[in-house]
Amino acid sequence: MAGLKGNCVVAQSGGPTTVINASACGVIQEAARHEGVFTGILGSHNGILGVLHEDLFDLTRESSRTIDDLRRTPASALGSCRYKLKDLDADRADYERILEVFRAHDIRFFFYIGGNDSMDTADKVSKLAADSGYAMAAVGVPKTIDNDLAETDHCPGYGSVAKYLGAAVMEAGRDTEAMYTTDSCAVLETMGRHAGWIAAATGVAQRTPEDAPHLVYVPEIAFSIEGFVADVKACLDRVGRCVVAASEGLVNDQGAYIATEAGSFSTDSFGHTQMGGVGELLKNVVEADVGVKCRYNKLGTCQRTAMHFASRTDVDEAYLAGQAAVRAAVDGVTDKMVTLLREGDGPANYACRTGLADLRAVANGEKLLPRSFMNEAGNHITDAMRDYVVPLMRGQADLRVGEDGLPVFARLARRAVKQKTGRSYSITQP
Amino acid sequence: MAGLKGNCVVAQSGGPTTVINASACGVIQEAARHEGVFTGILGSHNGILGVLHEDLFDLTRESSRTIDDLRRTPASALGSCRYKLKDLDADRADYERILEVFRAHDIRFFFYIGGNDSMDTADKVSKLAADSGYAMAAVGVPKTIDNDLAETDHCPGYGSVAKYLGAAVMEAGRDTEAMYTTDSCAVLETMGRHAGWIAAATGVAQRTPEDAPHLVYVPEIAFSIEGFVADVKACLDRVGRCVVAASEGLVNDQGAYIATEAGSFSTDSFGHTQMGGVGELLKNVVEADVGVKCRYNKLGTCQRTAMHFASRTDVDEAYLAGQAAVRAAVDGVTDKMVTLLREGDGPANYACRTGLADLRAVANGEKLLPRSFMNEAGNHITDAMRDYVVPLMRGQADLRVGEDGLPVFARLARRAVKQKTGRSYSITQP
Repeated sequence: MAGLKGNCVVAQSGGPTTVINASACGVIQEAARHEGVFTGILGSHNGILGVLHEDLFDLTRESSRTIDDLRRTPASALGSCRYKLKDLDADRADYERILEVFRAHDIRFFFYIGGNDSMDTADKVSKLAADSGYAMAAVGVPKTIDNDLAETDHCPGYGSVAKYLGAAVMEAGRDTEAMYTTDSCAVLETMGRHAGWIAAATGVAQRTPEDAPHLVYVPEIAFSIEGFVADVKACLDRVGRCVVAASEGLVNDQGAYIATEAGSFSTDSFGHTQMGGVGELLKNVVEADVGVKCRYNKLGTCQRTAMHFASRTDVDEAYLAGQAAVRAAVDGVTDKMVTLLREGDGPANYACRTGLADLRAVANGEKLLPRSFMNEAGNHITDAMRDYVVPLMRGQADLRVGEDGLPVFARLARRAVKQKTGRSYSITQP
Repeated sequence: MAGLKGNCVVAQSGGPTTVINASACGVIQEAARHEGVFTGILGSHNGILGVLHEDLFDLTRESSRTIDDLRRTPASALGSCRYKLKDLDADRADYERILEVFRAHDIRFFFYIGGNDSMDTADKVSKLAADSGYAMAAVGVPKTIDNDLAETDHCPGYGSVAKYLGAAVMEAGRDTEAMYTTDSCAVLETMGRHAGWIAAATGVAQRTPEDAPHLVYVPEIAFSIEGFVADVKACLDRVGRCVVAASEGLVNDQGAYIATEAGSFSTDSFGHTQMGGVGELLKNVVEADVGVKCRYNKLGTCQRTAMHFASRTDVDEAYLAGQAAVRAAVDGVTDKMVTLLREGDGPANYACRTGLADLRAVANGEKLLPRSFMNEAGNHITDAMRDYVVPLMRGQADLRVGEDGLPVFARLARRAVKQKTGRSYSITQP
């Protein structure tokens, strides 16, 4: 795709992270440096929905201060979505609409910041464009707090959730330590539907056996209520209190989510089961089967947007990934996602550079927590996990703070681009 | 009590806060400056339980670095408890045991950092001592995230929970803003059993109508499910999304907790009902009666120990309150709690000095959120509330951060003081 020239569009998809806007900032600021290639820089409102609905805005009309503040603003400033396109074979309508909008706006570059579903979309759009003789480049930027994307050492968004939850479990641990005469147990429920990366990251907070979390459970290792009760009792005997970090996606030895026993359930538009019950379930188990009072904390969406204690390493790498996507496209790359490659030996010498992987490989892959990152008992992390995650948690991201003591975040003006396709479009899902 | 000389003991009671250790630090460092008055500085392990069990430690044997780091360490480093002494008339045994231990260790100064139950204890111990001819001084230091103590403008601990939850609701609000096409509502459940100070503080995060929280509910105003549903629908029409901050202690027009309908319940040893169900209840109401997807976040004990984003004003005032208690005792004061007095006109000219109030007045009082701090509809705050709380949220507290990117907190060595009463004691409650 060398020599391509035209507009670019940037879109954000899936659950927000603390640093997905830093990636957008990297894309926008780098694209602005290549005026000979990018005739305009458009934003798509709410991920791929903005393209489908021709709901685009002109990012060059945002103030440079606003764009720069995206580095210090959590969640998806362009708007996100969970819209999953059908298979190309099943229904080409969405893909053809995307190309229609791309053609109408001379969009030749598609920068999609998201997870594996987004990479799948970008890949299919790109392939259809090639089949249709429309020259364009699609480059993905990885994003997910879950850290489960294939082909990349780690994902922007993960370091910040690791850092914030590490602090949260450490602080909640001090609460239990102070109150153990009445409240000797606490459970922190973390996000993580299939992969235990997030729950495992909290394990770093345990610097000494006194420190929380005393137990860590992940979805990759079958969870048994009996084993849990035994673990908690042993911990109470040993330390006099017990703080547990547990992933929302814990499963039993049949592979079924344990939290179906508690909490409400619904299914999102990707067919993912929505969870929320593990913390409450484990609290009830402790109170019933161990016989001590237990509290639970569920940080929910706060954990993936905690800009007030974000990792500087994560913010910087997220920016770098966005920037690398643009540079790759300028160099004629298409159908690739930017990856983060770890360099240096051990946490002390950690360095990171970017690479590229096929969109298809990312779309089809999933990277679970290696068994060696958890101890033999399956209830805490190993040094291998610690060495992996610690470099990603280092440094504190910049924060602008207002006169009221609270963070100041940017909000895009989103100046609409005039529609050109001359028709509205009804998406195939609600 | 002028001319008194002997050991002092410091104790922490009730639910931890982010800054209760800053108050302990103020007590310890100030006491060390008056060697002619304080022959020793003792800590009581787990509040009044440490006195009852003669489980005391020597704070002068802690390193000065550890003592100084208490300013940067959340929760109760001395240990806390929820043990409530019986009425003096009903059972004098606990009080007599306290005096026995005080006499045995020549404890002439009792610095109790806590809420109104603690002030009640300190008051009764002091009165019994006077009746028994044992010369001693009891001075209280206010502590509660709930901000509901009488006689003081505000309480150490409150500014930090206000700041942290303000940031959390702001960040969660950005999440909902990004994801409104599928997840258009979110509920943040805050602590606050009887008083709405904590939930109300989150209202500050709404700088513009776009910002979260869009609705704020407090226990002082009767809550109706129907009114709530109407509020959420109106907000969705107006803003396209809705983020709610709700106190755990919401009650209906009969004065009954609304969360009895959801979540598990237990009762703590003070007879307080333990809550945890409001967030989940309101999520279910939104999904059932408004018909949109709703998430809920329950920060639990994380909110009262969030040192990583504490208010510098709060930390400084907590220290000041501890220091003032010691100075008052040196000046011969007893049976008083240190209060914080607001000076200056408006948030821009805020200043704070300490005063003194009778322990009895604090023990018997409770300060609820004034009706004028909430709007007429009872679903958001007024400028009066904003002006009240903003000065307390300002500045960021110091934080020591380790090589792993996480906070570093102090832990006391707690070198035991040799027991002298020659007998163990069984408390009247478990």
